Amino acid sequence: MNDEYKSLFSADTASFMRSPVREIFKRVDLSKIYSFAGGYPSPDAFDLEGIRQFACQIIDTVGSKAFQYNATQGTPELRQALSDRYGVSVERVQITTSSQQGIDVCTRVLVDPGDVVLTSNPSYLGALQSFRSYRATIVGVGHSDDDNEFRQAYVDAIERCLSQGKKIKFLYMIPDFQNPSGETLSLSQRKILVELARHYGFLIVEDSPYRELRYRGATVPTIYSLDPDRVLHLGSFSKILAPGLRVGWILGNPAVLEQIYVCKQSLDLCPPVFDQYIATRFVTSGRIDANIEKIKALYSERCEGMQRLLAQYMPQGVTWTHPDGGLFLFLTMPRGFDSVKFYDRALDNGVAYVAGSFFHTDGGGLNTMRLNFSFMTLDRIDKGLQLLARLIKEELAELKLQ
Amino acid sequence: MNDEYKSLFSADTASFMRSPVREIFKRVDLSKIYSFAGGYPSPDAFDLEGIRQFACQIIDTVGSKAFQYNATQGTPELRQALSDRYGVSVERVQITTSSQQGIDVCTRVLVDPGDVVLTSNPSYLGALQSFRSYRATIVGVGHSDDDNEFRQAYVDAIERCLSQGKKIKFLYMIPDFQNPSGETLSLSQRKILVELARHYGFLIVEDSPYRELRYRGATVPTIYSLDPDRVLHLGSFSKILAPGLRVGWILGNPAVLEQIYVCKQSLDLCPPVFDQYIATRFVTSGRIDANIEKIKALYSERCEGMQRLLAQYMPQGVTWTHPDGGLFLFLTMPRGFDSVKFYDRALDNGVAYVAGSFFHTDGGGLNTMRLNFSFMTLDRIDKGLQLLARLIKEELAELKLQ
Repeated sequence: MNDEYKSLFSADTASFMRSPVREIFKRVDLSKIYSFAGGYPSPDAFDLEGIRQFACQIIDTVGSKAFQYNATQGTPELRQALSDRYGVSVERVQITTSSQQGIDVCTRVLVDPGDVVLTSNPSYLGALQSFRSYRATIVGVGHSDDDNEFRQAYVDAIERCLSQGKKIKFLYMIPDFQNPSGETLSLSQRKILVELARHYGFLIVEDSPYRELRYRGATVPTIYSLDPDRVLHLGSFSKILAPGLRVGWILGNPAVLEQIYVCKQSLDLCPPVFDQYIATRFVTSGRIDANIEKIKALYSERCEGMQRLLAQYMPQGVTWTHPDGGLFLFLTMPRGFDSVKFYDRALDNGVAYVAGSFFHTDGGGLNTMRLNFSFMTLDRIDKGLQLLARLIKEELAELKLQ
Repeated sequence: MNDEYKSLFSADTASFMRSPVREIFKRVDLSKIYSFAGGYPSPDAFDLEGIRQFACQIIDTVGSKAFQYNATQGTPELRQALSDRYGVSVERVQITTSSQQGIDVCTRVLVDPGDVVLTSNPSYLGALQSFRSYRATIVGVGHSDDDNEFRQAYVDAIERCLSQGKKIKFLYMIPDFQNPSGETLSLSQRKILVELARHYGFLIVEDSPYRELRYRGATVPTIYSLDPDRVLHLGSFSKILAPGLRVGWILGNPAVLEQIYVCKQSLDLCPPVFDQYIATRFVTSGRIDANIEKIKALYSERCEGMQRLLAQYMPQGVTWTHPDGGLFLFLTMPRGFDSVKFYDRALDNGVAYVAGSFFHTDGGGLNTMRLNFSFMTLDRIDKGLQLLARLIKEELAELKLQ
């Protein structure tokens, strides 16, 4: 019977890829282990008091309108609030049901099977899933700190695609505190990407869920600000308010947003309306900024603490990135270490991470892993890292890598 | 510049179709006219007191978990509540971000360009939009009250598709109080559809947002109950609780839901979590049933009232359906009447409807229109119908159809 159904599935389904992160969540109860795996905000990051207050206000003053169907582009109130906050005109704002939907809908309106999506290597898993599900050709480019090398790596990748007759539709980039690497692109790197997009005629999708969570250093202009007509900027309330309210946004060229709007009609009619009203109040009251400050203080301590503890516990030969913000850092073990194979050992001992190879577009990064520092308290980060370091040491010893 | 972008759009976008309903909402302020156009619930249908009470309870007792990421399949609590409510096992329940997403994701995992989706003619516009967006071949079948004729019309359509070498993936059907016709399929008609699906090897997507809003007559078993492995049953809280909470569900074969689950990971990660918790409380407390009774009393009066008023105001030659539930009835004017052209006259005079041809798969139904009776009070329905009847009379006179 089920074999009969399989013959009914669309060709896209053959390219569907399970999120190993979501599979981990099915396998273990996160509350029972040390989890560096998810991209979960800290439960302490949610302003429950503010949400309660605004939710009641909305029910009492906005009333039924907050529970009725609303515009596919998002509520006029939230679009206006974001227009004011980010200094863009309202017709450049499309609300999405999470920024994951933003990635998905951009891919849907731009990519035919075989078309190229350029991205950094490594890149965000949920984006790779979406690109694969539309049978895009994903081309990942490793980044150099040297501007000329950075540019050349992209030029080489682009020219290779063009010589194969492939069409490049867009470049996907998380320029601030990247998931998974934690790295931030410099202004000159951003300018290079825009210049290449103009020269070769593709768009840029700038995914920016962590941008407002900077713990040190100066803010770098968004890629969007460098070319608002060519860049689709994805934002989200997930990391600055709460991911359980599924609200994100796209800033972009109205001509492109128009296609996204029509597509979104048949995707889900409109984003969650009550959620949008709650988010709007946080923005217009300024309470979102107070919340962002609170979150930054919380995560900044965990981010610094994790780097200090890694230095304390990890064996020689293990290195890591030093993010200026966001939720993640990236760990690199000596070559020969297999973080996919190591996963069972870690999980059996009560500690979880995401293997770095899942973020790689080319099967590389077997000796890497992504660690999240937002979810657990510093005390649990400490205990979890001690455990992880001991297990890595044992593994390295067995592999005779140390 | 924008021409350059057009060359970047995917092939699917050429088949995107704007919802004329949503376009109307952009053109007029619904609160200022008599609107029979939308599928909006009455603002009086929302149990704001219950929502307020549960929202506060959830914030106070569930706390941060209600605002964190949650499972792609939906929260365990809501899946369990629906499993209990509908007597199906939990692994047969997938929560969706609205039942529009249910339609979209079913199409996504089943349809390749050119594949056939069978449906009634007329059928739900939002579903037709979704099918078109994946470049499905939409085959609409007109229904007869006679079982043999009903079956034969489907057999003819199916055989025609097969003779053209086309693959039929699924039949889409709203068996209860259809949108737009208001009609309900008999048990024997449902059995015929299941028998055909088995014989020809396709699935059935049963879209059932209005099922619990029956105002008279006996409930007919769901198509799902006749073959739970072959039928995907779509449900929604939009019409029985509130559409501003974007929560729906799919009941179905776990083998098919598995593909939908993986697809949904990259679509939007998880449905709105706070919304799901609110919906769950309504179900487990039984308050949803009290609300359904309240809504039925409200809409039942409007449904009957509208039929009475139509008989009173409409000129000879105009007929309409007599729904036993739901939100809509369907009006048919004499042949030669063009409800698309008539639209400007109606709107200019302050009354809105949806032209029936938009629901037709074959460009037919020009002399039909869909009227909604849930949104306006009976008093406004009365005034709106008087106005509409007068305008139709004038149009018929000008067209010399009367």
